[in-house]
Amino acid sequence: MDWLLTPGPVRLHPKALEALARPQLHHRTEPARALFLRARTLLKEAFGTQGEVLILTGSGTLAMEALVKNLFAPGERVLVPVYGKFSERFYEIALEAGLDVHRLDFPYGRVPGPEDVARKGYRGLLLVHSETSTGALADLPALARAFKAENPEGLVGADMVTSLLLKEVALEAFGVDAAASGSQKGLMCPPGLGFVALAPRALAALRPRGYYLDLSRELRAQREGESAWTPAINLVGAVAAVLEEVLPRLEAHLELKAWQNELLYGVGEALGLRPVPEVRSPAVAAFYLPEGVAYGAVKEAFARRKAVIAGGQGPLKGRIFRLSLMGHYDRYEALGVAALFREAFSDILPAS
Amino acid sequence: MDWLLTPGPVRLHPKALEALARPQLHHRTEPARALFLRARTLLKEAFGTQGEVLILTGSGTLAMEALVKNLFAPGERVLVPVYGKFSERFYEIALEAGLDVHRLDFPYGRVPGPEDVARKGYRGLLLVHSETSTGALADLPALARAFKAENPEGLVGADMVTSLLLKEVALEAFGVDAAASGSQKGLMCPPGLGFVALAPRALAALRPRGYYLDLSRELRAQREGESAWTPAINLVGAVAAVLEEVLPRLEAHLELKAWQNELLYGVGEALGLRPVPEVRSPAVAAFYLPEGVAYGAVKEAFARRKAVIAGGQGPLKGRIFRLSLMGHYDRYEALGVAALFREAFSDILPAS
Repeated sequence: MDWLLTPGPVRLHPKALEALARPQLHHRTEPARALFLRARTLLKEAFGTQGEVLILTGSGTLAMEALVKNLFAPGERVLVPVYGKFSERFYEIALEAGLDVHRLDFPYGRVPGPEDVARKGYRGLLLVHSETSTGALADLPALARAFKAENPEGLVGADMVTSLLLKEVALEAFGVDAAASGSQKGLMCPPGLGFVALAPRALAALRPRGYYLDLSRELRAQREGESAWTPAINLVGAVAAVLEEVLPRLEAHLELKAWQNELLYGVGEALGLRPVPEVRSPAVAAFYLPEGVAYGAVKEAFARRKAVIAGGQGPLKGRIFRLSLMGHYDRYEALGVAALFREAFSDILPAS
Repeated sequence: MDWLLTPGPVRLHPKALEALARPQLHHRTEPARALFLRARTLLKEAFGTQGEVLILTGSGTLAMEALVKNLFAPGERVLVPVYGKFSERFYEIALEAGLDVHRLDFPYGRVPGPEDVARKGYRGLLLVHSETSTGALADLPALARAFKAENPEGLVGADMVTSLLLKEVALEAFGVDAAASGSQKGLMCPPGLGFVALAPRALAALRPRGYYLDLSRELRAQREGESAWTPAINLVGAVAAVLEEVLPRLEAHLELKAWQNELLYGVGEALGLRPVPEVRSPAVAAFYLPEGVAYGAVKEAFARRKAVIAGGQGPLKGRIFRLSLMGHYDRYEALGVAALFREAFSDILPAS
């Protein structure tokens, strides 16, 4: 397939492929330590924190679990609004971690508002910034502010899996204390690394548990440019290479990504398709399937043009389809994809 | 550095690099499912089991923790002989998992004998096959037999991190019920994947816990060629490519690796160096430092020849050094490394 239009993994950045072609480094050598520290410094800048970013070998889910298990002790009360598959995952992780979890349900496609989380008596709030399953974007600063007005000691944890490098993020400025992300979305690298960003308040509140997931152990090692366990150092090199390229021109990059996603929404709306989210994330464009059209038919119409798209998840399975240009696509490739999208739908919705 | 002589990560197999240069696959597509199933089938052959092999995105330590936490419930009695850094790790993981852990200490360099583990009253025994920290090889079949004679219901878990593709392994034939390994040792791939092999007895005894580490969830997904969480699918491709190359001529490969390691021991012994292990693993050659020689001097002598070696770990830190040819080295490269080893020591031990 030539056009990977899934909301992660995504088309790789050429700097990532270049980094992955290099000979193996041993992680306990000076060049690897320097690389690891460089990646951590770049990630701190990307997450917009004066705290620390820990690089974990694993998926974004591992990073979410590490965040929850190292910030909250069993029995602590946390509030988890559920408005998509990934906030559902936060809920499941919090339950498995033995927290006293209060779940707030929202229809998929909507996001919670500040009034929903302005509730007293919680140690934590877990939010998904960009809900990849619905294309919805939550207003993290407003939500964190409303929650902390009622819970001044409370900690806000966020899934930034598909907002990092796609939308402005800044932990302390947002009132977010910890965030999780991964290598295979906005970073345009292969999957295999998870990141946990910890603002100074989260660092002061760490209650480590687990073995592989023990973040205090990681912190001690990673401050020295090492890691507690053998890291996927080749991927660390890829991440550093991409960040070095993107961060110096981040504003233009975010504008491009926002423009590309709105381009997809424009095409879909012109075709009469109804967008899923109320508030749109720039990471993915999600549309309801037209009446009487099965997801398989849409998937096939894209596949005939060598494009891979994504369907719905959870309650949206069989009801929506999703397209994403968060991989390494420039302005002209995006215009090509817009044409591909229109053509694919000409198979499905014959001209009236 | 041109010569990566560390006992993992290792010099990469060219098939691994070739696989890593390919465009990104999305893990929920047919080509990725076919690749994932192929990798699992090849890994089953490599581990010598009729059971299942699960591919986890994470390091070998994650695989060890998954093995322990999914086979044993808190409070169950397990026996853990400690004879190196990695058996020490098994002990730490078992403790953190809340097991009733009985530790048996051995001097680093030695391995337990069957008489040491022939003790009644245990649910499990955790063993390291090839102790990378000392270069020692444990006799898994004899140990498993002695343990099971006293504990017929007991389960044996093994760390095969540096024995897989370096020494014959076969779960059921060895009496081993579960084993952990990783991508960056005998498989000659970058770090980033851990494997848990489960023989039929272990599959029947699974008591899953954790979220990311829940092996029953992985099992359901991986039987369909998927994984519970976004996998490092690029590395899965590398592992499959290397196994396809090596497995059809595994016997010759194991002979080469054994010959190469004995070549290193031969050079060291001719230089008057004392080997660390009593029983040698083919994965690594470990030597005590000569009287009055600091590890830094040995490391430097190799570094001047563009070679990276490893020092000691735990109580052996500053007392030994380690060399390994488990990466992608052929017969002639190994002879070159033997010459490099001799030359490096000519800086350290002037000819008498």
